[in-house]
Amino acid sequence: MKKILVFGAGLSASYLIKYLLAHSKKENWKVTVADQSLPLVLSKIKKHERAVAVELNIQDKTKRESLIEQHDLVVSLMPPSLHVLIAKDCLKYKKHLVTASYLTAEMKKLHSAAVKAGVLFLNEIGLDPGIDHLSAMEMIHDIQSKGGEITSFKSYCGGLVSPEFDTNPWHYKFTWNPRNVILAGNTTATFTQNGQLKFIPYNRIFLQTETILVKGYGQFEAYANRDSNGYIKPYGLEKAQTVLRGTLRKKGFGRSWNHLVKLGLTDDQLQLTQAPGLTWRELVTAFLPPSSLTPEQNLCHFLGINRQSREFKKLQWLGILENSKLGVEQGSPATALQKLLQQKWKLGKGELDMIVMQHQLTYTLNGKTKKRISSLVVKGEDEVYTAMAKTVGLPMAIAVKLILQNKISARGVVIPLTKEFYNPVLKELKKYGVEFCE
Amino acid sequence: MKKILVFGAGLSASYLIKYLLAHSKKENWKVTVADQSLPLVLSKIKKHERAVAVELNIQDKTKRESLIEQHDLVVSLMPPSLHVLIAKDCLKYKKHLVTASYLTAEMKKLHSAAVKAGVLFLNEIGLDPGIDHLSAMEMIHDIQSKGGEITSFKSYCGGLVSPEFDTNPWHYKFTWNPRNVILAGNTTATFTQNGQLKFIPYNRIFLQTETILVKGYGQFEAYANRDSNGYIKPYGLEKAQTVLRGTLRKKGFGRSWNHLVKLGLTDDQLQLTQAPGLTWRELVTAFLPPSSLTPEQNLCHFLGINRQSREFKKLQWLGILENSKLGVEQGSPATALQKLLQQKWKLGKGELDMIVMQHQLTYTLNGKTKKRISSLVVKGEDEVYTAMAKTVGLPMAIAVKLILQNKISARGVVIPLTKEFYNPVLKELKKYGVEFCE
Repeated sequence: MKKILVFGAGLSASYLIKYLLAHSKKENWKVTVADQSLPLVLSKIKKHERAVAVELNIQDKTKRESLIEQHDLVVSLMPPSLHVLIAKDCLKYKKHLVTASYLTAEMKKLHSAAVKAGVLFLNEIGLDPGIDHLSAMEMIHDIQSKGGEITSFKSYCGGLVSPEFDTNPWHYKFTWNPRNVILAGNTTATFTQNGQLKFIPYNRIFLQTETILVKGYGQFEAYANRDSNGYIKPYGLEKAQTVLRGTLRKKGFGRSWNHLVKLGLTDDQLQLTQAPGLTWRELVTAFLPPSSLTPEQNLCHFLGINRQSREFKKLQWLGILENSKLGVEQGSPATALQKLLQQKWKLGKGELDMIVMQHQLTYTLNGKTKKRISSLVVKGEDEVYTAMAKTVGLPMAIAVKLILQNKISARGVVIPLTKEFYNPVLKELKKYGVEFCE
Repeated sequence: MKKILVFGAGLSASYLIKYLLAHSKKENWKVTVADQSLPLVLSKIKKHERAVAVELNIQDKTKRESLIEQHDLVVSLMPPSLHVLIAKDCLKYKKHLVTASYLTAEMKKLHSAAVKAGVLFLNEIGLDPGIDHLSAMEMIHDIQSKGGEITSFKSYCGGLVSPEFDTNPWHYKFTWNPRNVILAGNTTATFTQNGQLKFIPYNRIFLQTETILVKGYGQFEAYANRDSNGYIKPYGLEKAQTVLRGTLRKKGFGRSWNHLVKLGLTDDQLQLTQAPGLTWRELVTAFLPPSSLTPEQNLCHFLGINRQSREFKKLQWLGILENSKLGVEQGSPATALQKLLQQKWKLGKGELDMIVMQHQLTYTLNGKTKKRISSLVVKGEDEVYTAMAKTVGLPMAIAVKLILQNKISARGVVIPLTKEFYNPVLKELKKYGVEFCE
């Protein structure tokens, strides 16, 4: 019997646990799920005979190490900063580790030691990063194997609300970590366009967007995502003139969000020592230049928008001009904004989310320029088995199965860019309705 | 004999050491100057009979503690982050400590322990912070003692180049820590204006400036400096409708500097992995939106300026459109910009700096509204005894004397806001030509 240890039973664990338990009998697995909230674990494992629930404070070194020692493979769904802690234990007890998080410099340092220990530390095997790598590499290798040379690679992904529940003027609801959405774009994005190095700083990242069409789902807009150039070498795109990864929102989102950025409401450094008593109207007024105009007029003048415009109405709809209290004890404008938006942009009971991904590859083959566009749309099943939980959790779960079946030869600190990952994982994802169409 | 220990022999130490040694015989002092560079120490103490030179790595705990134990009072001119390290030793051996740096939360925590040990940890006794406190508190107390109520308090300070050496189109040269100038304003400023809380984020801090006139020296502009509201309570300005502290530059500086901010060249997070090979023209092009225009045209279009404008000529003069290499091995755009500006804005041999400070106080007295404006201008004497070294070092040195003469009753972690500081320090500063005029 193989023993799997899952750290974390939150939203991203739902689909993963469901898959692992569904396969546990056939594969002869025992699945231990450890979280600081025992009720949360129990709600996810549903008294399954092959599941074990453990209440755990991840900082409890003795208990954590003892658990790891007793299992064959560890899945970490903990906050990214904790992965290295777990990885070091995995090294000590020679256990495999699987995460859906971005590979960090700290994790990379463990590569040689992991190779030496004969274990695999697989990172970036969720949605984005994860399914984006798998599907992109399948296309890239397919084109290259036919002798094609990729000249442009663009890849976009977004977590959105499913169209039937797209009921607010922002056309956005939170479907994942809200804080990441509030702070998105606040580090300069890097990419390559027409052979030129390109940077986009925070002051215009939501304005310098591209429009993307996804058949049957209309127009989206994409803003550049972190460091696209870091993928040139791993993806084998050294000859491409354009390499860009972007995040998708419904069209019009960026311009409106940029108003909040320009105002200063996404600032996460400033500490609002006056926060408990402050109203939204006062906070917005504090950020506006001095003026004898009303806050409404001043805001429109400052942003260069009209009182009758959709832009203004979207801001007004958020309630940022109202006399309501921020309702946060302390924190930054970003903290207060997150609290407000978690009410306004809440995915309601029974509402479903949607994942959209698209790759656009241009290449030359036999002297001709060709283009391939591949798109993925996944809708959530319900509030627990969301599209995001599914597309993050399933690739991890399938990878766990492949590793325990000894079908993966890679060792060390790895991200899933090779055939041994993308062939079987993409194939099995199709069975679950996670399928690209070109 | 009293023994004084000075950590640091850099630019800010010149005047301080000169003063301490000049008074050492009369006051019966021994002055030890410790720095990692022994030649630097020797150049400052000039074989003075009462001076001792020590070569010291400040991280060498044993040697550092032993030095502190052997002295009566410690002056730290080390980088601000190291003050607490030294303060903890001072606590251990019950020695007074004097710094010119902003009081940190970490230092504040030592207050009770310092009171208990019967020692004074005096911070913010340089120029800004320092002379600004002393001179502001003298005015505030004077007005309040006559029954006046202060309705508006504005205080400005800047380190600039002396007008006769103001020879470049930016009307600015570095006279102190260049990195602070490059990163200035990158945290949202907080102040109070007409009874309203006000914030100014980085995206407009250099545009939302005030114009200040200093008789005989023309027009300056001021941008808001950090958290002005933090001084409302310590200064006793609870009834003031306006409280603002600002940094001075020559008029026109802010608008031009904002172009560099908007471009992204002051970004200190982005790591230029391509740095060694990158040219300035390439870096600027990377930050500009995609375009078929030349970089010059594109830059003008992006910034909304004319090719014939003074604005464009100032940018061009910096060389940011040239094909010269950045010349940095690694680092951020801010690192590269600092390197460039340290060449372009270098205070040349024989050139002098200038300090400008101005307080503007409005108050009501007997039902009448009155205004007092007090200004200070100090020019450097030469390249070592600069205006900045003088106005930072002299208040510290005078405070050292007062403490060793037992003329200061304050104990614990303190900033100099009371009469026992401002009366004697301002009086003695006048002898050195550091005198405000109303």
